[in-house]
Amino acid sequence: MPIGEFELIARYFQDPRPPLVAARPDVLLGIGDDAALLRMPPGHELVAALDTLVEGRHFPAGAPPESIGHRALAVNLSDLAAMGATPAWFLLALTLPRADEAFLEAFARGLFTLARAHDVALVGGDTTAGPLSLSVQALGTVPAGQALRRSGAAPGDLLYVSGTPGDAAAGLALLQARGSQGGDAHEQHLLQRFLFPEPRTELGLQLRGVASACIDVSDGLAADAGRLAAASGCAAIIDAGRLPLSDALRAQAGEDQSLAYALRGGDDYELCFTVPPLRRADFEARMTNVKCRVTCIGKLAVGSGVRVERDGASLATDTRGYDHFSNG
Amino acid sequence: MPIGEFELIARYFQDPRPPLVAARPDVLLGIGDDAALLRMPPGHELVAALDTLVEGRHFPAGAPPESIGHRALAVNLSDLAAMGATPAWFLLALTLPRADEAFLEAFARGLFTLARAHDVALVGGDTTAGPLSLSVQALGTVPAGQALRRSGAAPGDLLYVSGTPGDAAAGLALLQARGSQGGDAHEQHLLQRFLFPEPRTELGLQLRGVASACIDVSDGLAADAGRLAAASGCAAIIDAGRLPLSDALRAQAGEDQSLAYALRGGDDYELCFTVPPLRRADFEARMTNVKCRVTCIGKLAVGSGVRVERDGASLATDTRGYDHFSNG
Repeated sequence: MPIGEFELIARYFQDPRPPLVAARPDVLLGIGDDAALLRMPPGHELVAALDTLVEGRHFPAGAPPESIGHRALAVNLSDLAAMGATPAWFLLALTLPRADEAFLEAFARGLFTLARAHDVALVGGDTTAGPLSLSVQALGTVPAGQALRRSGAAPGDLLYVSGTPGDAAAGLALLQARGSQGGDAHEQHLLQRFLFPEPRTELGLQLRGVASACIDVSDGLAADAGRLAAASGCAAIIDAGRLPLSDALRAQAGEDQSLAYALRGGDDYELCFTVPPLRRADFEARMTNVKCRVTCIGKLAVGSGVRVERDGASLATDTRGYDHFSNG
Repeated sequence: MPIGEFELIARYFQDPRPPLVAARPDVLLGIGDDAALLRMPPGHELVAALDTLVEGRHFPAGAPPESIGHRALAVNLSDLAAMGATPAWFLLALTLPRADEAFLEAFARGLFTLARAHDVALVGGDTTAGPLSLSVQALGTVPAGQALRRSGAAPGDLLYVSGTPGDAAAGLALLQARGSQGGDAHEQHLLQRFLFPEPRTELGLQLRGVASACIDVSDGLAADAGRLAAASGCAAIIDAGRLPLSDALRAQAGEDQSLAYALRGGDDYELCFTVPPLRRADFEARMTNVKCRVTCIGKLAVGSGVRVERDGASLATDTRGYDHFSNG
């Protein structure tokens, strides 16, 4: 039975059950006025990210609604993490064909579970009828002058990536081939990495003051490392032999395809960052506080572009990122 | 010829021609990193609004692209104006079926012309392929404690509206009936009011400290006055005889239909606000600085709901607002 827009907003987004709410005293006005009113911590800068997910483009038609809710927020928290920001608030523009309550209930569960885990509050938004798409605007704060940028790296800086890139792309291939149910433990791991990517918020915070540059990996590791290098006026050299390929990915895809997923697959939402050699000890000490794995996969050099090497020799590889209008 | 997403973003949004750019020293990082980095003025609170426009829902298919760009930003600046905020920055999520350069050029012109007029800078966004829709997130600032809310009105406060409500709804009807070209001066006026609504930023700033409550009129004057009254725990009484109907509207629609457009039509993006009688002189003095017309159309009273009266008698009128899932 269709329900009205305002009732829908109230039921699922304005007044979610208390365990789902991130109660933040800095939200002076949340949903229900013309705009949200938010108190910034003194001495901090504001960090703002906006990313859209469109059905059939960023996730397959029929993807689990809980995953859609999770991912809509996760991709934006990932952007904040790449800036070293503390996430605080978000707004949601939800366009859906009809007010389907089963969809909304699962969607809201995915969204709010992640929101609570990262202590971010939904403070506004907009619900409209139309083809399924979601825009989330995430807002965070960072002490003045401490944000991580793409542009701070120098030749000789060590290049790192978090997690195990390539898993999400392999998971998406599985999802498209046979849906999200069943499969062995390796397949379930890969599916989960696509469906429920974990924003690297804690890692981003620990990288403040030690990383020289940072970017989140959404369009493929090689392409995004290339963007970091370009913004820093350097070349990036990736050692293929050091890429942290997961056992699940190797079991599913074999050596060459695993490498392709790790370098060119999208949707990882890991952080790719650089550390000056002189700060390496400080960096490694801080990493003992961070749960996710980080791996040195190469370095920056004088020049431009991205070079992927194995045993010192260049591998021919296509390092272009995903382009929403040229591909697919 | 299709062009790639990154080239498209760069050409139309990252590096628009200098006259279109609002250069703001508080933008520490704009488009081109993972997120925008923005400096807040000390002692201010952050105001955040997010509104989406979907083709066929918020504007007819085939609406002029310049108007689509203008309206996507205008509806959000209107939300900030209703809070008494100074607009500062915005982010744009643009979903469009293909990278159509003629569309984009006109769209960007509409968007940036309005942005420049209100000194707001585009600081981030996202472009994807899909059915035409636009989400804008607008960010502004307000001195701590001075934001206008919906909830501050009391019985006896005077009820005002800016501009001439109803024009936009009549303009939309014209647009749907025969497109945006031609027509006499009255018809062109009504069309312009739908296609290029003017956010009441300056009025919102002048209302700080004198208005007791404020809301922007997007779903119809009666419905939005009703929301303000409900948030304030009051009833709203609108005197139909005092509604500022434009000559263009009266000429186009006749008396009864004009009243219906003014009370129930959407898309006005005017401000509806209340002023305590004791602050009326101060308020009127301030209005000499504001270009747009403001009209006292009634008052708040003890009770609840919205009552429309003429010569002291209640008019039967449907004061429901537009609901995206129940209507159309």
